[in-house]
Amino acid sequence: MQFSKLDDIGAFCRDLPKGDSAAAEAAANRQQVLTKPPGSLGRLEELALWLARWQGREKPQLDRVAINVFAGNHGIAARGVSAYPAEVTAQMVANFSAGGAAINQIARLAGAELTVKAIELDRPTRDFTAAAAMDADEFLRAVDIGFRCVPQNCDLLAVGEMGIANTTVAAALCAALLGGGAARWAGRGTGVDDDGLLRKRATIMAALDFHRGILADPLRAAVSLGGRELAAIAGSVLAARSRRIPVLLDGFVATSAVLPLAQLAPDALDHCCAGHVSAEAGHRALLAELKLDPLLDLRMRLGEASGAATAILLLRAALACHNGMASFAEAGVSNRT
Amino acid sequence: MQFSKLDDIGAFCRDLPKGDSAAAEAAANRQQVLTKPPGSLGRLEELALWLARWQGREKPQLDRVAINVFAGNHGIAARGVSAYPAEVTAQMVANFSAGGAAINQIARLAGAELTVKAIELDRPTRDFTAAAAMDADEFLRAVDIGFRCVPQNCDLLAVGEMGIANTTVAAALCAALLGGGAARWAGRGTGVDDDGLLRKRATIMAALDFHRGILADPLRAAVSLGGRELAAIAGSVLAARSRRIPVLLDGFVATSAVLPLAQLAPDALDHCCAGHVSAEAGHRALLAELKLDPLLDLRMRLGEASGAATAILLLRAALACHNGMASFAEAGVSNRT
Repeated sequence: MQFSKLDDIGAFCRDLPKGDSAAAEAAANRQQVLTKPPGSLGRLEELALWLARWQGREKPQLDRVAINVFAGNHGIAARGVSAYPAEVTAQMVANFSAGGAAINQIARLAGAELTVKAIELDRPTRDFTAAAAMDADEFLRAVDIGFRCVPQNCDLLAVGEMGIANTTVAAALCAALLGGGAARWAGRGTGVDDDGLLRKRATIMAALDFHRGILADPLRAAVSLGGRELAAIAGSVLAARSRRIPVLLDGFVATSAVLPLAQLAPDALDHCCAGHVSAEAGHRALLAELKLDPLLDLRMRLGEASGAATAILLLRAALACHNGMASFAEAGVSNRT
Repeated sequence: MQFSKLDDIGAFCRDLPKGDSAAAEAAANRQQVLTKPPGSLGRLEELALWLARWQGREKPQLDRVAINVFAGNHGIAARGVSAYPAEVTAQMVANFSAGGAAINQIARLAGAELTVKAIELDRPTRDFTAAAAMDADEFLRAVDIGFRCVPQNCDLLAVGEMGIANTTVAAALCAALLGGGAARWAGRGTGVDDDGLLRKRATIMAALDFHRGILADPLRAAVSLGGRELAAIAGSVLAARSRRIPVLLDGFVATSAVLPLAQLAPDALDHCCAGHVSAEAGHRALLAELKLDPLLDLRMRLGEASGAATAILLLRAALACHNGMASFAEAGVSNRT
């Protein structure tokens, strides 16, 4: 395994590779001479520079784009915190395999390879209102699955998840690590009714009380309040960082999965970009806490990497311009007066 | 010509074809059975329904997507209201033809056919601080060029422009028709410095004073304060409507070009969607006035249909999901409990 104990992750995060400033500067210089007013492509220019920094190339490429979707099941699903029954997790994994889900369609459009890893769906995490969701070994095994799941020679990775009840997990983790209680972080997820939302909040508050002794420890909180699919996302994001692969994050659950990393090291998410802000209640606040500025705001709240995959299209637009445009000199266009 | 006098446009706008409510309803019913929580694709679902309404199909298509970019020159460019010299309009048109501009790259990525029409670049409009920019015939000829420029069998049209000094034109038109003076609408365009911005505002205020007698008349304002590329955009948007082709609007200038239509008939832009909100100062306020909710907010401010073309990618994502996803029954996924 990549990490044999929790502390190994902390040590890894304290010694993360940096981006390539020279490549980013070369890309910035290139942007200055392309046939447009400087800065007029806005975020598309910034994305080209960010890709240049992490790929270490003046002209970044997106030849091989991977999407990793991890699935897990959760003991707290039995508490009626979701609008859907827990068996939907496995059914949706089958739907991913058959090509029928939203992420299949968006991944194909975006020219990305989709990998779906279902992690011990028949062994849900424990109900975290009265136990730790996982023990450290279970957590580390899931991290390892994610770590090993990043393809070789990958130019970009998008990460997402599937797991009935996991917005409750994400909200509990955010409440533990960022404060504000259940009210700040619990939303309607797949669409629970008012009673379901009350059960969701009560579940989170019970968990915060039960685990109050470890709420300040990012990794112990991720073990005790998290889920296997969240752990695997964190593993993939760390593997990507170790190889300087830029990452697009999906929604509330995927972002909550990397919150512990950001708390271990302030630069841990420098290679990550928020693909979108979800309509799920806590996501905007979580992105603000992490100082991540989402690319898209389309009121999506599906998970399964659908928002991140849609954002791949914007990265392709950014690079089409960055790599394909003529310079003022090449095109014979007069520059500023 | 499609319109032989200004009043013909008003009459046309009072009798516009409606969207196909039955097709939109069929598309909405389809969305309800796809393997996702209802509404969880957010704006992507709404886009599929909007396309269904205007294409008149439960499953819309984007086989033939057109981008029309119109270019014009402006007498007020001589007043130093732009960071670039007026010859850049023609030079950028040559750059479009050579394939070196941002719009060429994004159009190719989005699978769209780009048409660029330069309209009498060697005959700028008159300086509107002391004359009408055009007469009615000049305006109607430009509208006609745009009207005739929408390809047959087109599934979607995106409209944009190129014209040094035309954010001053757009701001003058908005100030005339919506009030608030130059301060509300004048921004830095391609990047004028503080002195340039003062000249821009002074130019707009002088124009509002000179033309104060016609400011309440949408079409007379478009003739006297507008530009040929704006008139052509309005023409294309009307032609699209006459054939129920959905339209993506680009930035501040392109949106200001259709403002007169919205004032002639409140439903005139029902077939239009704002591709993005530009970083140009007045665009957000203009979209709010028109009740258009932009798809993208990437701080782009280039024009040349670049924001609208980027938004085509989102429409493709919307339709990939709408047309390609499995239903709950097809996939054997349990629906809500």
